[in-house]
Amino acid sequence: MTESETGQQRQFIAPEAADDALVRLAKIGGQVQGVTRMIREGRYCVDVLDQIASVQKALDGVSRTVLRNYLERCVTDAIKDDDPLIHDELMKVLFRHR
Amino acid sequence: MTESETGQQRQFIAPEAADDALVRLAKIGGQVQGVTRMIREGRYCVDVLDQIASVQKALDGVSRTVLRNYLERCVTDAIKDDDPLIHDELMKVLFRHR
Amino acid sequence: MTESETGQQRQFIAPEAADDALVRLAKIGGQVQGVTRMIREGRYCVDVLDQIASVQKALDGVSRTVLRNYLERCVTDAIKDDDPLIHDELMKVLFRHR
Amino acid sequence: MTESETGQQRQFIAPEAADDALVRLAKIGGQVQGVTRMIREGRYCVDVLDQIASVQKALDGVSRTVLRNYLERCVTDAIKDDDPLIHDELMKVLFRHR
Repeated sequence: MTESETGQQRQFIAPEAADDALVRLAKIGGQVQGVTRMIREGRYCVDVLDQIASVQKALDGVSRTVLRNYLERCVTDAIKDDDPLIHDELMKVLFRHR
Repeated sequence: MTESETGQQRQFIAPEAADDALVRLAKIGGQVQGVTRMIREGRYCVDVLDQIASVQKALDGVSRTVLRNYLERCVTDAIKDDDPLIHDELMKVLFRHR
Repeated sequence: MTESETGQQRQFIAPEAADDALVRLAKIGGQVQGVTRMIREGRYCVDVLDQIASVQKALDGVSRTVLRNYLERCVTDAIKDDDPLIHDELMKVLFRHR
Repeated sequence: MTESETGQQRQFIAPEAADDALVRLAKIGGQVQGVTRMIREGRYCVDVLDQIASVQKALDGVSRTVLRNYLERCVTDAIKDDDPLIHDELMKVLFRHR
């Protein structure tokens, strides 16, 4: 990943929100490997399910960070610009993502 | 991961279910990296949220595989053995994981 | 509701679970009327949404009561009888209801 | 319910959205009575759970109607007025109601 790939284009997601999401995603990558390991080691199903639930909760955290950024930036700008399609887009997002 | 680490201990999760879960988890690991890349590339929030939703759906698939195995093996055995605690454990699992 | 309508047929749901569910459902009926009243009175959307969320939580409680009874009675009996279809039925129930 | 009780105050929820929600709520009241009847009649747990799931889906419909109205009216107005608290309120609503 070069500077030019990561740098200037961060227009939609604010830098702090992006950094927060990237830190969470790195941790999630590790948690997914943890679930893989637990299954390989033959751990009790309930422990595996608990760990999967933790990954899902962590992903909800990323989703929430990106959603808040989306509301504060994209949705807010679109409403101020009287974009007639923003409410449809928003409803679609809300009922697909938590 | 050596044979001895992965082999015999797979007592709780049946081999086919474990293999199915491991294949899904490998794909999920790649999807998490995909979300990371999208955020770094400054992609539109809605596209990022869509991709996160795909990861969550894929994780639900793993959870479902492990849960079915848990019901078919652990819960079934416990009920046949008249384990008095199995319904409490099951309810706890069901209302933590979906 | 006469004795004959309510009496003997309570075979699937245990009397205590049925009574618990019926008390909750009577309360839920009142809560639904409460939401109707709030909308008629022109109350703030967030207050209406909060009240709808309360009804949903109360319904989850009924669902949980009936599900626990289903697991303890129907699923337990079916597993002891080696019913080959019970795991399919259970998975279908779990992924349709919370 | 008199004219004066229902009429002018419908400021937050638009008349068409309120009418839509009220029709749905009347149907939901009937569905709740249906669940009560099924439990009294000793119906199979899975049928009761299916009916409860239908009520929950119907309530989600009301919630969605009120949420869309909230976004189109209250949130839109607040954003145009630069209300600094609207994003916090919205996030709170979204993560309590789906």
